[in-house]
Amino acid sequence: MTGWPIDHVALVVADLEESAELYTTLGLTERYRERIQEQGVDIIGMRAGDATIELLKPFSADSPLVRFLGDKLSRLHHVGYRVNDIEAELARLKGLGMRLIDETPRRGAHGNRIAFIHPSSTGGTLIELCQPPSP
Amino acid sequence: MTGWPIDHVALVVADLEESAELYTTLGLTERYRERIQEQGVDIIGMRAGDATIELLKPFSADSPLVRFLGDKLSRLHHVGYRVNDIEAELARLKGLGMRLIDETPRRGAHGNRIAFIHPSSTGGTLIELCQPPSP
Repeated sequence: MTGWPIDHVALVVADLEESAELYTTLGLTERYRERIQEQGVDIIGMRAGDATIELLKPFSADSPLVRFLGDKLSRLHHVGYRVNDIEAELARLKGLGMRLIDETPRRGAHGNRIAFIHPSSTGGTLIELCQPPSP
Repeated sequence: MTGWPIDHVALVVADLEESAELYTTLGLTERYRERIQEQGVDIIGMRAGDATIELLKPFSADSPLVRFLGDKLSRLHHVGYRVNDIEAELARLKGLGMRLIDETPRRGAHGNRIAFIHPSSTGGTLIELCQPPSP
């Protein structure tokens, strides 16, 4: 048992290009760009080994991510863990009494199916389950 | 080029055992426990695939981590990236004009040699370079 691997770490950023440039300087390479319309964010995914640093920029001023970012240029937002069977994991966690934001998976970046656990069940940090598309 | 892999994601937590229990429930397994005296923290490392979720609990009330945590039970603190030659990376980043918290590596958890980049050079999020001990 090696635990759920980290799929991605998400940051909310004020300027996508500036942040992508920073991570390029650090030695990461761009993996994808994508707009997730339903979530109101533009994303640049930067490859960090087998995981991704997800840079999230809300494109709507009333997104809750704007409030979360405040006056910062970037802020850590959540950790996404890779799971093999997201429905089974959600059912298991729900059975344990954990509160879920998403009881059924929805579409995330890059073809993933994702679901968030409610921070009230995780001590306040936001945790995402993430199942990549079948190859 | 696959970018620096994520070595660990660090959370400051109010209660180490409670947080470790949460991550065990999620499916992660305990990897190590350690006190880093110079940094004033107790750590539980939880295995997340090839990476680690580092739960940090300051044991001194005047640690800056206490202020960072505030009234939360847990808060995302930094992302550590694994590098092969930490001195070379620090020299490269310094040469690019980046401000470093640690110009020379110091001891981190689990025998790692670590160095932090100053948040003023990273848009406000804390980034650690981390070189594991030679096998």
